[in-house]
Amino acid sequence: MGRGIFITLEGIEGSGKSTQLKRLAQWLREQNRQVIETREPGGTVIGTSIRNMLLDPEQRFQDPHSELLLFTVDRLEHIKSVIQPAIDRGDWVLSDRYIDSSYAYQRGGRELPESFVMQCLNWAPVIPDITVLIDLDIQEGLARAKARQALDRFEQESLAFHERVRQAYLDRAAADPTRMICIRDEGKGPDAVTQAVIAAVSTHPKIQEQLRVHS
Amino acid sequence: MGRGIFITLEGIEGSGKSTQLKRLAQWLREQNRQVIETREPGGTVIGTSIRNMLLDPEQRFQDPHSELLLFTVDRLEHIKSVIQPAIDRGDWVLSDRYIDSSYAYQRGGRELPESFVMQCLNWAPVIPDITVLIDLDIQEGLARAKARQALDRFEQESLAFHERVRQAYLDRAAADPTRMICIRDEGKGPDAVTQAVIAAVSTHPKIQEQLRVHS
Repeated sequence: MGRGIFITLEGIEGSGKSTQLKRLAQWLREQNRQVIETREPGGTVIGTSIRNMLLDPEQRFQDPHSELLLFTVDRLEHIKSVIQPAIDRGDWVLSDRYIDSSYAYQRGGRELPESFVMQCLNWAPVIPDITVLIDLDIQEGLARAKARQALDRFEQESLAFHERVRQAYLDRAAADPTRMICIRDEGKGPDAVTQAVIAAVSTHPKIQEQLRVHS
Repeated sequence: MGRGIFITLEGIEGSGKSTQLKRLAQWLREQNRQVIETREPGGTVIGTSIRNMLLDPEQRFQDPHSELLLFTVDRLEHIKSVIQPAIDRGDWVLSDRYIDSSYAYQRGGRELPESFVMQCLNWAPVIPDITVLIDLDIQEGLARAKARQALDRFEQESLAFHERVRQAYLDRAAADPTRMICIRDEGKGPDAVTQAVIAAVSTHPKIQEQLRVHS
């Protein structure tokens, strides 16, 4: 068994990435792959406490650094406890959100200084092999998020905040096109997105290589 | 009303700094000063959640950065919510632990890289006017801590860890003698230490100046 594959799913609120992650995991299992599904924040015991602090709509951070530092602690513990051991076992790890969420939400949405954000991102010792960004209009995404459940602390932010998040995602995908695949949700339903996700992942050079080595 | 005064108390486990903080606060109130007593970690609502994570003897961090990042979040929220507003009101703020604890425990005790530790310390936008370091032998301090209550996650560390903490405190006090006053506990009881703390604080140039301006 060689090194596993690490895939992250990213997107604004209501982009359907959690649904697509489950479907990609199912497809991979049908290809006889060992798959771990995880998420940020909250993939560990300490992460669950941190997730509750971060998403609580009543939470008000007084210092602009605090939020990203908490996401960073959650991520570092998640990597060491879950992601790195699974990759070392040769598993496929699918994470709902990872470093690109911090870039989109704290650099884009919150407009924190680039140097501080990049420093926190760079503490993460593992870069995804593939990141699937599901892109859609923010009005459409927020409408779906609202229909689903009460909005969390991020979902309650302004439209301008969400536009900055979306744009930061698109900028980051444009700057790193080998790792990041941007899939546009054209409003044709989740099955159409799933087809596009599976097509993009299964034809990605890293996956082709892995399938060749282990088939 | 001018700017207030910020005093921190530091020392190894069992150094008696919490007792001395209460006595110094009482003495200052007798001088008709408005005094706020606070502590790290845990001086805010979010800080109480973080304090529980940090001191829980069952907690095992998987990544070496996590602990200091959590202390840093606690500190940044504590500054913005409690310390800075009180100083701005002209109060005297006494904190049980602050930046020098991070230096002593994470740089000294945990031996984290100097650059990482200093970066986290430098995010704190407020430096104490005076820091009182109460120094004593670690065997004596740990014996007192054990007699008091069940040991927390830090108190359970090895003797070598506590020796590194104590030495880092002494090094830092030697490097910043204007701000840091080192008071040696000679084993003559808490009253002797209180006398030394009050004598050192009341004759410190920053205090002399403040008393002159506001008397």
